[in-house]
Amino acid sequence: SAVKKGDFLKPLDTFARRHIGPRPEEQLKMLKTLGFTNIQQLMEKAVPLSIRSNKFEIGEAWSESEALEEFKKIMSKNKLLKSFIGCGYYDTKVPYVILRNLIENPGWYTPYTPYQAEIAQGRLEMLLNFQTMVSDLCGLPVANASLLDEATAAGEAATMMFNLANKKKKVFLVSDDCHPQTIAVVKTRVEGIGMTLKVLPSKDFVIDEDVCGVLVQYPTTYGNVEDYSELTKRVHDAGAYVVVASDLLALTLLKPPGEFGADVVVGTAQRFGVPLGFGGPHAGFLATQEQHKRKIPGRLIGVSIDSRGKRALRMAMQTREQHIRRDRATSNICTAQALLANVSASYAIYHGPQGLKDIALKTHGAAKVLAAGLKKLGCAPVYSTFFDTIVVDVKKTRKTSQEFFDACVAEGVTIRVINEDLVGLSTDERTDAEHVDAVFRAFSNVTSKKLDFSAKSLEAAADPNSLPSAFKRTSSFLTHPIFNAHHSETEMMRYLFSLQSKDLSLQTAMIPLGSCTMKLNAAAEMIPVTWPEVNGLHPFVPPSHSEGYNQMLEWLGKDLAEVTGFHEISFQPNSGSQGEYAGLWAIRAYHEDRGDHHRNICLIPTSAHGTNPASAVMVGMKVVVVKCDSQGNIDLSDLKLQAEKHKDNLAAFMITYPSTHGVFEETVREAVQIVHENGGQVYMDGANLNAQVGFCSPGDLGADVCHLNLHKTFCIPHGGGGPGMGPIGVAKHLAPFLPGHPLRKTGGEKATSSVSAAPFSSASILPISWMYIRMMGTEGLKQATEVAILNANYMAKRLEKHYNVLYRGSSGFVAHEFIIDLRPFKEFDVTEEDVAKRLMDYNFHGPTMSWPVAGTLMIEPTESEPLFELDRLCDALINIREEIAEVEKGLIKAEDSVLRGAPHTADMVLSDSWNKKYPREKAAYPQPYLCENKFWPTVGRIDNVYGDRNVVCTCPPITDYQ
Amino acid sequence: SAVKKGDFLKPLDTFARRHIGPRPEEQLKMLKTLGFTNIQQLMEKAVPLSIRSNKFEIGEAWSESEALEEFKKIMSKNKLLKSFIGCGYYDTKVPYVILRNLIENPGWYTPYTPYQAEIAQGRLEMLLNFQTMVSDLCGLPVANASLLDEATAAGEAATMMFNLANKKKKVFLVSDDCHPQTIAVVKTRVEGIGMTLKVLPSKDFVIDEDVCGVLVQYPTTYGNVEDYSELTKRVHDAGAYVVVASDLLALTLLKPPGEFGADVVVGTAQRFGVPLGFGGPHAGFLATQEQHKRKIPGRLIGVSIDSRGKRALRMAMQTREQHIRRDRATSNICTAQALLANVSASYAIYHGPQGLKDIALKTHGAAKVLAAGLKKLGCAPVYSTFFDTIVVDVKKTRKTSQEFFDACVAEGVTIRVINEDLVGLSTDERTDAEHVDAVFRAFSNVTSKKLDFSAKSLEAAADPNSLPSAFKRTSSFLTHPIFNAHHSETEMMRYLFSLQSKDLSLQTAMIPLGSCTMKLNAAAEMIPVTWPEVNGLHPFVPPSHSEGYNQMLEWLGKDLAEVTGFHEISFQPNSGSQGEYAGLWAIRAYHEDRGDHHRNICLIPTSAHGTNPASAVMVGMKVVVVKCDSQGNIDLSDLKLQAEKHKDNLAAFMITYPSTHGVFEETVREAVQIVHENGGQVYMDGANLNAQVGFCSPGDLGADVCHLNLHKTFCIPHGGGGPGMGPIGVAKHLAPFLPGHPLRKTGGEKATSSVSAAPFSSASILPISWMYIRMMGTEGLKQATEVAILNANYMAKRLEKHYNVLYRGSSGFVAHEFIIDLRPFKEFDVTEEDVAKRLMDYNFHGPTMSWPVAGTLMIEPTESEPLFELDRLCDALINIREEIAEVEKGLIKAEDSVLRGAPHTADMVLSDSWNKKYPREKAAYPQPYLCENKFWPTVGRIDNVYGDRNVVCTCPPITDYQ
Repeated sequence: SAVKKGDFLKPLDTFARRHIGPRPEEQLKMLKTLGFTNIQQLMEKAVPLSIRSNKFEIGEAWSESEALEEFKKIMSKNKLLKSFIGCGYYDTKVPYVILRNLIENPGWYTPYTPYQAEIAQGRLEMLLNFQTMVSDLCGLPVANASLLDEATAAGEAATMMFNLANKKKKVFLVSDDCHPQTIAVVKTRVEGIGMTLKVLPSKDFVIDEDVCGVLVQYPTTYGNVEDYSELTKRVHDAGAYVVVASDLLALTLLKPPGEFGADVVVGTAQRFGVPLGFGGPHAGFLATQEQHKRKIPGRLIGVSIDSRGKRALRMAMQTREQHIRRDRATSNICTAQALLANVSASYAIYHGPQGLKDIALKTHGAAKVLAAGLKKLGCAPVYSTFFDTIVVDVKKTRKTSQEFFDACVAEGVTIRVINEDLVGLSTDERTDAEHVDAVFRAFSNVTSKKLDFSAKSLEAAADPNSLPSAFKRTSSFLTHPIFNAHHSETEMMRYLFSLQSKDLSLQTAMIPLGSCTMKLNAAAEMIPVTWPEVNGLHPFVPPSHSEGYNQMLEWLGKDLAEVTGFHEISFQPNSGSQGEYAGLWAIRAYHEDRGDHHRNICLIPTSAHGTNPASAVMVGMKVVVVKCDSQGNIDLSDLKLQAEKHKDNLAAFMITYPSTHGVFEETVREAVQIVHENGGQVYMDGANLNAQVGFCSPGDLGADVCHLNLHKTFCIPHGGGGPGMGPIGVAKHLAPFLPGHPLRKTGGEKATSSVSAAPFSSASILPISWMYIRMMGTEGLKQATEVAILNANYMAKRLEKHYNVLYRGSSGFVAHEFIIDLRPFKEFDVTEEDVAKRLMDYNFHGPTMSWPVAGTLMIEPTESEPLFELDRLCDALINIREEIAEVEKGLIKAEDSVLRGAPHTADMVLSDSWNKKYPREKAAYPQPYLCENKFWPTVGRIDNVYGDRNVVCTCPPITDYQ
Repeated sequence: SAVKKGDFLKPLDTFARRHIGPRPEEQLKMLKTLGFTNIQQLMEKAVPLSIRSNKFEIGEAWSESEALEEFKKIMSKNKLLKSFIGCGYYDTKVPYVILRNLIENPGWYTPYTPYQAEIAQGRLEMLLNFQTMVSDLCGLPVANASLLDEATAAGEAATMMFNLANKKKKVFLVSDDCHPQTIAVVKTRVEGIGMTLKVLPSKDFVIDEDVCGVLVQYPTTYGNVEDYSELTKRVHDAGAYVVVASDLLALTLLKPPGEFGADVVVGTAQRFGVPLGFGGPHAGFLATQEQHKRKIPGRLIGVSIDSRGKRALRMAMQTREQHIRRDRATSNICTAQALLANVSASYAIYHGPQGLKDIALKTHGAAKVLAAGLKKLGCAPVYSTFFDTIVVDVKKTRKTSQEFFDACVAEGVTIRVINEDLVGLSTDERTDAEHVDAVFRAFSNVTSKKLDFSAKSLEAAADPNSLPSAFKRTSSFLTHPIFNAHHSETEMMRYLFSLQSKDLSLQTAMIPLGSCTMKLNAAAEMIPVTWPEVNGLHPFVPPSHSEGYNQMLEWLGKDLAEVTGFHEISFQPNSGSQGEYAGLWAIRAYHEDRGDHHRNICLIPTSAHGTNPASAVMVGMKVVVVKCDSQGNIDLSDLKLQAEKHKDNLAAFMITYPSTHGVFEETVREAVQIVHENGGQVYMDGANLNAQVGFCSPGDLGADVCHLNLHKTFCIPHGGGGPGMGPIGVAKHLAPFLPGHPLRKTGGEKATSSVSAAPFSSASILPISWMYIRMMGTEGLKQATEVAILNANYMAKRLEKHYNVLYRGSSGFVAHEFIIDLRPFKEFDVTEEDVAKRLMDYNFHGPTMSWPVAGTLMIEPTESEPLFELDRLCDALINIREEIAEVEKGLIKAEDSVLRGAPHTADMVLSDSWNKKYPREKAAYPQPYLCENKFWPTVGRIDNVYGDRNVVCTCPPITDYQ
């Protein structure tokens, strides 16, 4: 009993026992199969004492309701005023049907990236809708799904231009009227790879032979709409490319950049139904011309066919990412913003083309009214051709921008202070008459001009459809039936549900992806994400308006510093790969600051995540590979050899810990020492940090920097492919070099340039990790690590009689994940893909395939999976082993086997023309429980080659379905 | 475009276009098939001008976000203090995993009552869990699922005792220490059927030969735990029965009433995870001995087998309800509280027996601390044996109860004022040290006794496990594996999802149930239900603490008065049937008040809902049947004949409008006049009110009272069988007789006794209807009525070539629903059940079966269904008609046909031993879209007879599954 005499007034809704799957008595049973009587015995074997840290104090666990109630109080300190700040972030109305049925629905937020496409057709369809939407609005045939934000999308585009020019032209021109945060991130990206950035007015652009491309904003950050057709012609004539940063809502009214020749359009889909969220998450996008589609960064959803020739979707050219091209990669992006891309696509589907246009007209009309009123108050806008943003020069009023800002705040609205004399005001879907009147009152107060009109009184004279015809969009968009069908709530709800039903999420089964840590995303953690206090704040409000966030960030920063053993945390990187990037930038800046400009060698073991070398290249480092031994451990002698060989130029060493093979290498301290002795810094990849929490820490092991995948270790859901968060922790000497931001102070005194558009990137999902840590407390977090390791070892034990379990620590135990070897079955033509697809027939998502070792599966159960589910997966794999044996024994050929036939859809197994060489029930119900509870894949095994040969990445015409 | 020059500053997120399914252009297309060019033409035909009212003004429509934001402001006026009020309502912690995955999930709240059991196995399983939970805790073998609240459950029990005594013994004794609201409702119920209620201390009970039963509360409303074993023996010896009102949480520690011989236990499962909600909704329950199981009121889930002999659940002895036994009925309950029963069962599953006991121990411990502290402050509790409630006599402090109450409020807590001298304090799952300290401070302030201790300091001396051994529970409970498996959040989430996946809800398809109006339950309507401001308030706070509710109730009352054309609304009835009951009580009281005690004849047409006669009987009226003509209309001459024949004793006439056949009878005004001329009052059944809204009204048609099924017409979801809400509207002369309440003023100056436990019954779901009305406005509500009628007529038109459409208005049009006749197929052995079950194979829930006419199906599409879905249902029915033709033509026997084989589960159609006389694909995929998107029934056709012969209504032992 949890209730003891003398101690029963505390809350009973404790969390750790809910988060952790196996119950205490089950843990004992599992330990027994491993030969132990308590978990400390296992931990002594699995986590060598030599690498332990004895310092870990995060505080007492709070109960679920305590944590939520306290957090509500904290976040209530944010000042929620109507924002006119704009600058890339605009308020929007999340349709409630999308809020409830998508954003707040674990069926949408708990699935993994759709690598296993046969059980992910639902969100693949929605992402294809996203691509179609972006493509249509931009007037370009190809769009990806999706990028991290507008600024990084612009950075990706700059790199893409560089690559299109075969890295021969090193100059990238950026117009000075782009958003400041976009300029900052492009600067980081461009300088990282040794290009030169020039920021100047676009009219002054000189396109010489060194220029690979230019970036302009349409409309500009000051709101004016400019005609870039001449410029585009000039750039093209010089053999360079044009990137346009644009706004999807504006493009419902404005001529799309594709129509004036843009090569690439980037932007954010935020204002399509994704809350401000103090900066994120939201989906960035990139659209381009047909001929560049194989150069497009990030994920591309494409149409292919399945084993029966039926239309099926999947990630196109997947090898670009999953087996990322290491140091030949041109981008390190993995986790993107799938969930938010899905929200934005849903928003477009629900509103349809006319609905979106109406929202744009209203937004534009409100800006017209605003401009008319401000003119009457002696504050005429600087530019007369605008969509939603006007800029006012207040100099002649003899007041400062700040005075106008303060007056606005007093009236309940915020505006953008551009500099001492310039203020900006942007309207959006939520701008109503009362907001505009508040601005009028504020300006009237400052200018002392009489306010003898109202928004309503100016409305009659304002024409929302008054853009100059040269800029007006004449082409149609979103003509595909999908954007013209689901406009009633009933239809929208059913469409979302029908897609959800096609996808396997954590609601259905374990997703045992090694290295991806698909643990529980608890409801109590998720609830604050959609509180208005959390998602209603603009990222560029003054710090005094974000007291709630400030407090949460400070607290979470302290927690993560304790977890990592580091001095300081930066929340700016918005994915694990961006964390690597920011961490390596800090290392580079540190060396440069010491005058070591030449230090550019980055040692990376062969076993590293593919993003490691990609990130290293992106900060201008040269990758040198370090060997691993037959056990998958870093070959210390090779490390020593390489480190000493490159000692003069050694910049960094990147190491994943526990190793990507799921082993705690005992030699880690030694490795760190070797690198330090040779002048390098140690970057620890945090992908496997969940196996360390509470027992050892990167800082204690001697590393200088690491990132944390909050969407792995700290419970942010994977969202079907994002959002993630990749904050980094650094040792004290690196703290000055954490990334800064042009619009809010972040980072150290020698801050590097920004890596994300928003100061704290996807700030609004950080509450998930904050809640998790608060509710677990010191003991809960340690227990989570223990049980993650127990679960993995229990499964490895059960499976070792049937499969060869690769790589273990010296004591014979694995860490939090393990690898089973399927290579021996290759000779019978049975592949790891056969096993992964066959697992779908057992209601499972396959484990990580062929990584880090080709021909294997890597299984990570996490601490949240209950014993029942662990056993269910073991039973399935053991059953599959018997199915493999049938092939081995020659009873059936691999190509005729149930393994190759997998996954089996319902229409396959009940077909009247069934002609497989095995019975239907064997295909569909290899275990009895499946008769009661079956998750059906909706397409057969997908033909990836077909799809990559015939790349289609917008919604196919409806006739294709007939 | 919705955006016009000069009018674009208003919000664009208007609701009516989202609520209504067919788009304007589709409506035109549909009208064309009916021969019209605009909807007014149809309305002129379908809704006779003679019955129209020209008065309807509900106000402008608000946009979705406007309405939600305004409502937030209104409900923020409620004063949310920690409640110690108790008296049948206790705060609880809704586990967040249940909140998000069940309460806020349309998959759980939008299904209908599980009549079509093959597509409802999920919630049937959860309701069976509920029954098992109640049965175990009460120590009685049979429990139902569920009743409306504790007070009505006690009322049902009293009636049940009366019936067990063959209506020969007319006295029912009630202990005066039962909850006041329970006594009030039992009084209403008992007096309605001519019994006598005696309220006195249970120790003074005299069990003479007129006494059929007694009711005691355990623990009492004053908190003391009494030993009723002697009393029980005495009652049984006298041949009478014992009903015990009890508390499920207390029963985890206290000896269950079944063990001391109770015949019936009633109560509420509210504190098992269902928020206070200002009184509801929550699930009442009734448990009894094996031999009484066929007398149990309400729904009983039972175990049966399907067409293959596989275990399957369904509502047992269903004929008791759906074809309710009219005037021989002993209860009128239909809609109960299925959703809340599911919440409570989930709560028990998540916590398990030990978790529940822990919560009880904590609750009890907190009460012990409270008692100890109050004693130190000179306020020793009156009773020393208690579970969670203590009562203090404050007389000797020379202060009044009110002064203590006010002092508590000042400290942020509320207590119960029982009378001038007595206060009550109840603890619950949420009572923490700070709350107890607040009470101590308040009492110290009033008594001026020094507070030199704290809750924490008293905790050590208090023993939460200190109940006298005579009262201690020694028996185990919830030993079934289901209560011992899903204790981690991952497991609970998956269990809920696995059940949800078995059930067809509005997320999947139209549920075209005639008379049940399964329209959209929009997200914006549902969101406020789980706001703390809405669901955190105790129903017995003083009116000044419920300002938000007061304002909403007033507003909604005004709206509903406008809709019904009546003078005043009572929100007390918590289901449609309770509305009928309360309305008839008002009529009875009106007659009595005029001295017409003899008026007791209630005229009811043969076509009436079965609840009509049942309700009439329950208020002591005698039912006289009025004939209908061949068109299903009331036979006016027979009405006249009967009215005149019974004119001296005529009490009421009950009429459904439009008729249960879906027709606007033009003679309605004449019928009303006949009744009035003969001294009767007219009760209009509001089941079909949705066809009237905005065009005609009960008040305008001359009726005196009607009820509104808010869960039909005004968008409260059906919840899989409740909650509903059945407020009544009355003409001015009946307003004095609306139901009162012992603890808060409701009703008129001559208020009748209560019909529900809480003053406004299920108050916390009223926001759904409030939001709907606000967001629709006058025009939107009228449009909803129009499109509901259009949808029905469009479908009738498409189907009339294939089926005989029964009953139309004189102009040849139906109202909002219509009936197709399947009786002609009887001769080929094809039944309406065959068609309803076959529809499941097409992803549909069958229409209303054999009601109001045996051998037919009644279809109601509602305005929310889009044209796509209407056509899909028409196509399915036309296809089925062809399948019937195969039997007609002798191509296949009915017993061998795909119709009789329906519904087909996946494991049936893919079985390796398939031996049906039709192909598998014909069974599973009669239409091509089903290959893409198939909802699978999880059991074959259920054998109801088997289940009713072998009634099992608790979870079967796990061995039965093997």
